[in-house]
Amino acid sequence: MLFTSDNWAGVHPKIMDAMIAANEGPVPAYGADELTQSVINQFTEMFGKKVEVAFVATGSAANSIALAAMLPPFGAVFCHEHAHIQIDECGAPEFFTGGAKVLPLAGEGGKLTPAILEEGMRIYTPAMAHRVLPKAVSLTQGTEAGTVYTIDEIRALTAKARELGLYVHMDGARFANAAAHLGASPKEIVTDTGVDILTLGGTKNGCMVAEAIIVLNEALSEHLVWRQKRAGQGFSKNRFLAAQWKAYFEDDLWLKLGAHANAMATRLAEGISAAGFELVNETQINEVFPILPDAVVEGLKEKGAAFYDWVQPGDSYDGKLRRLVTSYQTSEKEVEAFLTALKALA
Amino acid sequence: MLFTSDNWAGVHPKIMDAMIAANEGPVPAYGADELTQSVINQFTEMFGKKVEVAFVATGSAANSIALAAMLPPFGAVFCHEHAHIQIDECGAPEFFTGGAKVLPLAGEGGKLTPAILEEGMRIYTPAMAHRVLPKAVSLTQGTEAGTVYTIDEIRALTAKARELGLYVHMDGARFANAAAHLGASPKEIVTDTGVDILTLGGTKNGCMVAEAIIVLNEALSEHLVWRQKRAGQGFSKNRFLAAQWKAYFEDDLWLKLGAHANAMATRLAEGISAAGFELVNETQINEVFPILPDAVVEGLKEKGAAFYDWVQPGDSYDGKLRRLVTSYQTSEKEVEAFLTALKALA
Amino acid sequence: MLFTSDNWAGVHPKIMDAMIAANEGPVPAYGADELTQSVINQFTEMFGKKVEVAFVATGSAANSIALAAMLPPFGAVFCHEHAHIQIDECGAPEFFTGGAKVLPLAGEGGKLTPAILEEGMRIYTPAMAHRVLPKAVSLTQGTEAGTVYTIDEIRALTAKARELGLYVHMDGARFANAAAHLGASPKEIVTDTGVDILTLGGTKNGCMVAEAIIVLNEALSEHLVWRQKRAGQGFSKNRFLAAQWKAYFEDDLWLKLGAHANAMATRLAEGISAAGFELVNETQINEVFPILPDAVVEGLKEKGAAFYDWVQPGDSYDGKLRRLVTSYQTSEKEVEAFLTALKALA
Amino acid sequence: MLFTSDNWAGVHPKIMDAMIAANEGPVPAYGADELTQSVINQFTEMFGKKVEVAFVATGSAANSIALAAMLPPFGAVFCHEHAHIQIDECGAPEFFTGGAKVLPLAGEGGKLTPAILEEGMRIYTPAMAHRVLPKAVSLTQGTEAGTVYTIDEIRALTAKARELGLYVHMDGARFANAAAHLGASPKEIVTDTGVDILTLGGTKNGCMVAEAIIVLNEALSEHLVWRQKRAGQGFSKNRFLAAQWKAYFEDDLWLKLGAHANAMATRLAEGISAAGFELVNETQINEVFPILPDAVVEGLKEKGAAFYDWVQPGDSYDGKLRRLVTSYQTSEKEVEAFLTALKALA
Repeated sequence: MLFTSDNWAGVHPKIMDAMIAANEGPVPAYGADELTQSVINQFTEMFGKKVEVAFVATGSAANSIALAAMLPPFGAVFCHEHAHIQIDECGAPEFFTGGAKVLPLAGEGGKLTPAILEEGMRIYTPAMAHRVLPKAVSLTQGTEAGTVYTIDEIRALTAKARELGLYVHMDGARFANAAAHLGASPKEIVTDTGVDILTLGGTKNGCMVAEAIIVLNEALSEHLVWRQKRAGQGFSKNRFLAAQWKAYFEDDLWLKLGAHANAMATRLAEGISAAGFELVNETQINEVFPILPDAVVEGLKEKGAAFYDWVQPGDSYDGKLRRLVTSYQTSEKEVEAFLTALKALA
Repeated sequence: MLFTSDNWAGVHPKIMDAMIAANEGPVPAYGADELTQSVINQFTEMFGKKVEVAFVATGSAANSIALAAMLPPFGAVFCHEHAHIQIDECGAPEFFTGGAKVLPLAGEGGKLTPAILEEGMRIYTPAMAHRVLPKAVSLTQGTEAGTVYTIDEIRALTAKARELGLYVHMDGARFANAAAHLGASPKEIVTDTGVDILTLGGTKNGCMVAEAIIVLNEALSEHLVWRQKRAGQGFSKNRFLAAQWKAYFEDDLWLKLGAHANAMATRLAEGISAAGFELVNETQINEVFPILPDAVVEGLKEKGAAFYDWVQPGDSYDGKLRRLVTSYQTSEKEVEAFLTALKALA
Repeated sequence: MLFTSDNWAGVHPKIMDAMIAANEGPVPAYGADELTQSVINQFTEMFGKKVEVAFVATGSAANSIALAAMLPPFGAVFCHEHAHIQIDECGAPEFFTGGAKVLPLAGEGGKLTPAILEEGMRIYTPAMAHRVLPKAVSLTQGTEAGTVYTIDEIRALTAKARELGLYVHMDGARFANAAAHLGASPKEIVTDTGVDILTLGGTKNGCMVAEAIIVLNEALSEHLVWRQKRAGQGFSKNRFLAAQWKAYFEDDLWLKLGAHANAMATRLAEGISAAGFELVNETQINEVFPILPDAVVEGLKEKGAAFYDWVQPGDSYDGKLRRLVTSYQTSEKEVEAFLTALKALA
Repeated sequence: MLFTSDNWAGVHPKIMDAMIAANEGPVPAYGADELTQSVINQFTEMFGKKVEVAFVATGSAANSIALAAMLPPFGAVFCHEHAHIQIDECGAPEFFTGGAKVLPLAGEGGKLTPAILEEGMRIYTPAMAHRVLPKAVSLTQGTEAGTVYTIDEIRALTAKARELGLYVHMDGARFANAAAHLGASPKEIVTDTGVDILTLGGTKNGCMVAEAIIVLNEALSEHLVWRQKRAGQGFSKNRFLAAQWKAYFEDDLWLKLGAHANAMATRLAEGISAAGFELVNETQINEVFPILPDAVVEGLKEKGAAFYDWVQPGDSYDGKLRRLVTSYQTSEKEVEAFLTALKALA
């Protein structure tokens, strides 16, 4: 009954096997090996256009390097007020961009809309040097609230962003879960909607350490490798990062793992709801946000359940909001055990 | 009928005279001259304790260097969402602190309260490395909304800040106007309430270029001069900055000038109100915030009045909020001419 | 007998008068006033092409903002190992550029040459992300060693810089002295040689606070005002900075003041040499570098002379190198008094 | 005959096995797992005192976070002019420290000495804000030149550093090779000599991605985890990093691997010397620096040998210096094949 974080899961056996297989003989360092090159080609194929790729250690690094490619130091990026780049990366975006501003915006269900973005631009229009220069918007797909932007929603946002002179960054820490929910391809979700840079996460969904910066807008790729190196993110034995991606995409493993986690979350949500507890947001990926009284939480923990209280800027749940996260390893048995315990406490 | 900004005013004759008088023979550079030292002693006397002082070019520099002394790069400062450091300094605080976060909070009348501060700390408590580390709160005295913190309000905030482990910064760009309104001394407003660093502005109130960082908390003063130099803020001919302060404080010139500007604003506010227009916030210093229809604004401008529309984050005035600022040079005649024009348009 | 620094001098009466004259009525803030605009036009005329100008507080700020416009944060600038940007600005260039590297090079007489520059580029060729990306070279005109680049020397360096993909920055803290020595115009020294940005200093030569960034390469000017504002260098009462420049250039005042300081230094140098002491470098501007035994220095100081020991990276004078600086205010009487005292000690 | 870099080698089977073994069930993320905690305890035991440890992705990140803990943004660190932090980390130290300066010093055999350090401090003594504030010295153990500091040499340097007010950082990218050469323990090399922070590398010596920051000076450890997180270096699945270290230290594997690489290099050096070619520096670890004519290099490459030309600041080998690096995987057969080929070309 472990619903703390998808980061607690181990590495999927197929991915571990690929890493072992990559451990053959000496190969060039820093991504000049064949395996890395083949994975980059695979990304290009997957996104339907030539992309520049950097393999990095963490999602924070991926997001921040992406933003640094988009923003001058006197620039700014809009994002949802619950976005990881705003509240959970210890200021990494400000660090990597040389002090650009992250401008948080409120929005229903963890999502931004064109209208919210326009309202955010209000005090920066017309641009003048007393205020920072917004140059990007960052969307999280799936969101921190467990929801997923539809393709139409993304299109509307990228269109508005273009109109406002903003680049579009997509934080894809849970991209697999979102893609599984949408039943759409990376090309459809990212390339065709006009996203400029995707930061793609594999770690939460079965990899060991697999975060990639995928630059789709050629104008932003020129110095990617310099930014990566300068951030201490240039892995000498990059083949072991590439190997993870190779296995991850083979036979749609990534989508299967994501879909499983989603299904477990959906089952959790249905059961919690059936037990009479309110849920915040529709459960579209692997995160469930119930409102549970303290006594119920205590009872669940006594029975071995593990999950976190969820405290966010601007929330209004009086400390009763909880977050349950499923992973590719979550079993139906765990879910049912949790729901049984919950029903007993309801 | 010029109410655009107190920055449009020239230099008060007594201050200009002091600068001319300081132009006698060669003296040591970079503040090692006698005049500078005597002004620093004067500050120490005025604040009733040994203070460290840096003379800098602008309020943005003063605020940002002060914040850099308080915050680690992974730190954060709370402020009102309309604070100059948040929206009108082009990201200077992020730049000078090496990327610390400015965390804006909403509050009535441009002010923070202990409760607002406590709510702001909610998502950073307990401290953990995923989130930045709040280390300071910044108060603007008088506020961007034309109001003034009472001494009791400041005391309540500094007490709460101490409890939360936060330093207190005071942005005193319009400190003279606030002091004139309160009828209290710098020692009473700043030292006795426990403010750690004051950035004191003279430029808006009759000086040419006179902004000072006054460090009251000894623990924060050690490397002030290094921060100043590295920011390109170490004036070689510092005597001309010191001279301005000397004249500014002589015979309470600063308070007289501030009080005059305040009085002109109060008269404006009364007249606008009498003419039937709503005012946002009580007019306590030299800023007046009326809600005026576009047609009235147009009419006033045709008759020669000058002032700005006022667009702020989180406002709800549908573009009808205007800001009128008076200065030490504003004449009663100008004010009456404006009110006469307004009445004719009402 | 004051030869410590040209920064100890006061403000030239004509420049002070211009500041007083500028104190007429309210005018727009932040450089939107007519006087500022007319001075910018004057710069454009003087350099024979449209230039972008920012008025800032100090030479360190001017140099650093100029470099920030040229360098990405993973970039680098070459300069002489004695350059002010390398050793006397407390790391301001690294601060303003977001951490770019300043790469010092040794060179005779305080000067770089094309060969030195080429050698400096050796370890950065071909460019690769393990090493920073050199994007600029900075020349000091006149140099920190009291010498002046000839126009042919500058041309050779800018040609080599172009070949190597480097922008050219000129630190003109003592530009007036250099121009007076060369008998050449700003257009000939700067525009025609292909300098990209000049930082022009007036403070050391009779102004109060007058440092300007003159961007000649249009590709580098786009965000100058944002960089200036974010650095806390946007003066609200900019007219008083502009006024100084106006008077400075009127009737070639700047060149007359620079030539006087140069002449005093030349006389000093001749006299020191005649008294039997070695000089390091030819004295071309207002700085003289004699090698004087400690006993002589002590004797001179007892008689009221003031000057500094001069300690530089890579020097080999065993602590006997001294620096004497003349200013526009230095009198022949002071010079002769010094030389008389020196002869008595020789 | 692959002597390009120790980074080309794969992962040692025992280390890979440990990673596989760590892949058991879900465990807490971000280093809160038992394995990580046990490895931290192991470090504490190994160094003979309580240490703070951060596991990071690369040596550049390790070095830069260590330096950021030591230096204020207006600070500086001395190092050898060939140090990785100076020329091969793309400015990462400047980035992570917020723009502190790296001050390169020349020294025989890739080493600093107390005298060199003292000379480096000359222009920063006494400290004054015009110049940056040196706060640390960084030693590379083993050096970039293939040499090793003796324990007496380290002691002399740390004593001098203390005297000059400098912290001591040790870059241990090839620490295993150095320890194997010295036959001394980590405690003897690091703790007992007074090193403040060691950055310990395992990647070049058989690990996959294993770089650790070991803080021995408690005064520097307070915010280590914040710096790590903010740099995008907080690994969610940290257990896989910890596992590598566990295996690395088991049964002295690290020393055996390091000693093997050293032995291969020594054999190479002897053979090259015997073949009549000059070597630069004594070969004490796994790097060999012969001076080889271009024709010989060409001949060797035709026969399948791979290694790099070695271009360093301040070198004087006219492009004939080459670097050969051995690894834990280098075989005697490869070495002999190389030497045979070389002899044939001599």
